[in-house]
Amino acid sequence: MNDTMDSTVENVLAAAHHARRAARRGTATERATWLRAIADGLDAGAGELADIAHRETALPLPRLRGELVRTAFQARLFADRLERGTLFEVRVDPADPEWPMGPRPDIRRTHVPIGPVLVFAASNFPFAFSVAGGDTISALAAGCPVVVKAHEGHPELARATARIVTEGLRGAGAPAGMFGLVEGHDAGVTAVQDRRIRAVGFTGSEAGGRALFDLAVSRPDPIPFYGELGSTNPVLVTEAGWAARADEIVAGFTESCTLGSGQFCTQPGVVLVPDLAGFLERLTLPAVGPMLNQRIEDGYTAASEAVTSHQDVEIAKTGPSAPGAPSARILTTSAHAALSDPAIITTEIFGPASVVVEYRGAEQALAVLELFEGTLTATVQGAADNDAQVADALDVLSERAGRIIWNQWPTGVTVSDAQQHGGPWPATTAPTSTSVGTAAALRFARPVAYQNLPAAVLPEELRR
Amino acid sequence: MNDTMDSTVENVLAAAHHARRAARRGTATERATWLRAIADGLDAGAGELADIAHRETALPLPRLRGELVRTAFQARLFADRLERGTLFEVRVDPADPEWPMGPRPDIRRTHVPIGPVLVFAASNFPFAFSVAGGDTISALAAGCPVVVKAHEGHPELARATARIVTEGLRGAGAPAGMFGLVEGHDAGVTAVQDRRIRAVGFTGSEAGGRALFDLAVSRPDPIPFYGELGSTNPVLVTEAGWAARADEIVAGFTESCTLGSGQFCTQPGVVLVPDLAGFLERLTLPAVGPMLNQRIEDGYTAASEAVTSHQDVEIAKTGPSAPGAPSARILTTSAHAALSDPAIITTEIFGPASVVVEYRGAEQALAVLELFEGTLTATVQGAADNDAQVADALDVLSERAGRIIWNQWPTGVTVSDAQQHGGPWPATTAPTSTSVGTAAALRFARPVAYQNLPAAVLPEELRR
Repeated sequence: MNDTMDSTVENVLAAAHHARRAARRGTATERATWLRAIADGLDAGAGELADIAHRETALPLPRLRGELVRTAFQARLFADRLERGTLFEVRVDPADPEWPMGPRPDIRRTHVPIGPVLVFAASNFPFAFSVAGGDTISALAAGCPVVVKAHEGHPELARATARIVTEGLRGAGAPAGMFGLVEGHDAGVTAVQDRRIRAVGFTGSEAGGRALFDLAVSRPDPIPFYGELGSTNPVLVTEAGWAARADEIVAGFTESCTLGSGQFCTQPGVVLVPDLAGFLERLTLPAVGPMLNQRIEDGYTAASEAVTSHQDVEIAKTGPSAPGAPSARILTTSAHAALSDPAIITTEIFGPASVVVEYRGAEQALAVLELFEGTLTATVQGAADNDAQVADALDVLSERAGRIIWNQWPTGVTVSDAQQHGGPWPATTAPTSTSVGTAAALRFARPVAYQNLPAAVLPEELRR
Repeated sequence: MNDTMDSTVENVLAAAHHARRAARRGTATERATWLRAIADGLDAGAGELADIAHRETALPLPRLRGELVRTAFQARLFADRLERGTLFEVRVDPADPEWPMGPRPDIRRTHVPIGPVLVFAASNFPFAFSVAGGDTISALAAGCPVVVKAHEGHPELARATARIVTEGLRGAGAPAGMFGLVEGHDAGVTAVQDRRIRAVGFTGSEAGGRALFDLAVSRPDPIPFYGELGSTNPVLVTEAGWAARADEIVAGFTESCTLGSGQFCTQPGVVLVPDLAGFLERLTLPAVGPMLNQRIEDGYTAASEAVTSHQDVEIAKTGPSAPGAPSARILTTSAHAALSDPAIITTEIFGPASVVVEYRGAEQALAVLELFEGTLTATVQGAADNDAQVADALDVLSERAGRIIWNQWPTGVTVSDAQQHGGPWPATTAPTSTSVGTAAALRFARPVAYQNLPAAVLPEELRR
């Protein structure tokens, strides 16, 4: 850290708290300028950042460069939506003496920033879900100062990115204290309980997220905790889909399962197929790259061993292993076994492994789908016409998933206005919100209604 | 209870769980029909309902009849917005191969019901925040089955209203199990922890709400808990406002302070004035009616005694007392005392009492406003022109309040699209949501994105 970035928790929190009012006064246009400055800084530093990230995370350079493009794009998309005025909804009810429940005063509703936001960076997306990632950008777009707790998996990258964010914000005229970085487990635990922090964004494991959620809701003044925790992302291959598109399905699955060494929260962890032998016959697992770090590889090994320890689960395929990297694995079981012990299919294996479940008939497939808890995504691989399984499957899945995909694969989460990245517990701690897409800014904004205010003192967007 | 309404907790929860899918399939038009049937039932039963309510709550009949009008209107307003398609936002991003971060699939986002909702009825609004009140109507509008935990203050009214809701829903073709009533503290505690309940709405005290919130967030699968807990609703009388409108301000305050025996969560509990002697000189407290029950009157006495026990607080005025009713009270203190001990102004006294704080100069008034925690409302009584205190006051208040009022009074919360009834803790447990107005339905709906789905299997509103 250089001398312009003080990383002691107290100083960072005090600065964020101090910045909150100036931040709230920042107009949409000003906030857009802040976000664009961050995007420009990421572009300018892309080469150096990708190199540091590659060294610290073992992720391939092309993937990291692509993630940087996504991250800078995301900042510009929020900036654009701020300028268009579509990021936050405005509602205006003029005074109405004839309102049926009694005369209605003039009421106008807009959003104010919730206050300083604490963001826990993730390990598996060192750009897109880290220091300058979606939580940070959506909180800044909402006008909130941001304190990022760096992920210990990429400390040098966290500092380099923080420098870019800090300098970008300063250059664009954002208030001092608008952004700060803290490091270490204790700093995170301290900050999540500090009164000056008004909301938390988190991307990571269920265990880590639950521990921090518990702290946030146990405060004397509980605050919103937006945790994106994990998911098994079920895929249903229908009988008609299998009959029509077997080769394409297996090829698509193989790529989605092993992409990025399976280190995605949307990795398809469970696949229901009507023909296990045919599925395995078509399947060839590729070698995968090294995982992010030894702790994550150990977790991958432990979780896949926990699932394979079940007597009705087999390791049907193991991919080739490259030096310093794990092997991809396909575990198999029957619908009957999953119905007897749902833990087989509700345990997330973070890494390049999936559980393939053979079912017999539409009714049994549906019974297995009913076992899933909340999940970020659910996918149906079906046939274009007369696929009898689809309607019922969508009905069950729409109760569980934040995003439902037809004949594509869950990995690869586009950033757009209609995107939804969330779901019921344990996918997230906040099922009515999203952590990807422009609606993510709503997590960090609080609606306020202004009653009978003179135009001169109304927030600008309410003046008409 | 008659034989069509089984009130055992297990049966009601099982029925709500069973109803959830049929409820989700209900179209906007169908849901609107359900809500209108409830409104019609309330209208038809108004005479009998008001009589029961009057007997059980001691609230005056005209007030109860007005509250029934509001409650029926509310159901029809949500029905209207369902039919207009404005209750839930739909977002459509067509596929875009040129999307800057990489080709974008077709993504369409709508809302699905969160699942069965548990509603805790309030004591002080036996219609508008009780069995057929805002939480129930907004959850039904979102397509969620509702289980109401009756308030023990009006059990017979709860059952009579539940019968009307049940019969209205049945007559309108809603799924069986769409609505149920449970009674007793233990039933509420059981239901809030039951896996089949997916969200909770609560209106009541901070202590009661916190206890239930703690249960909801401590579940193995934590769920959203929307608690509206209470508020001191500060009012700032500016120096210019006082100079221009003193008589009008004192008259308006007196009415708002004592209306409904002060039993409103938006009652103006703290008023900052530049001239205490002049304020008191103009003030005559009326007699108030009996409170809802002895427990609430005891709480009123205890809270006002707790505040007056402070050596710098005096009881400056006591209203006349009617038989079986408390007296309204005006407590007074100085800004200096409030700054030394903020509990004087952050303790909610539920009843017809307010603390009037005399300040000396704009800066001191602002310092007192900074002491407030989250509050449902904040009011500025100012002058139309050249009121130097307004901008700074609005800046501080917009950080704390859900609704900001100019030259009107906080009691009387209209139901409309732009209404916001909420605020940071301790006003609510969910500062980004509202419990009044059509945006309340968003609490019980979960966004889902559909990626690449054929039109035939898309939810109707996404087909275009």
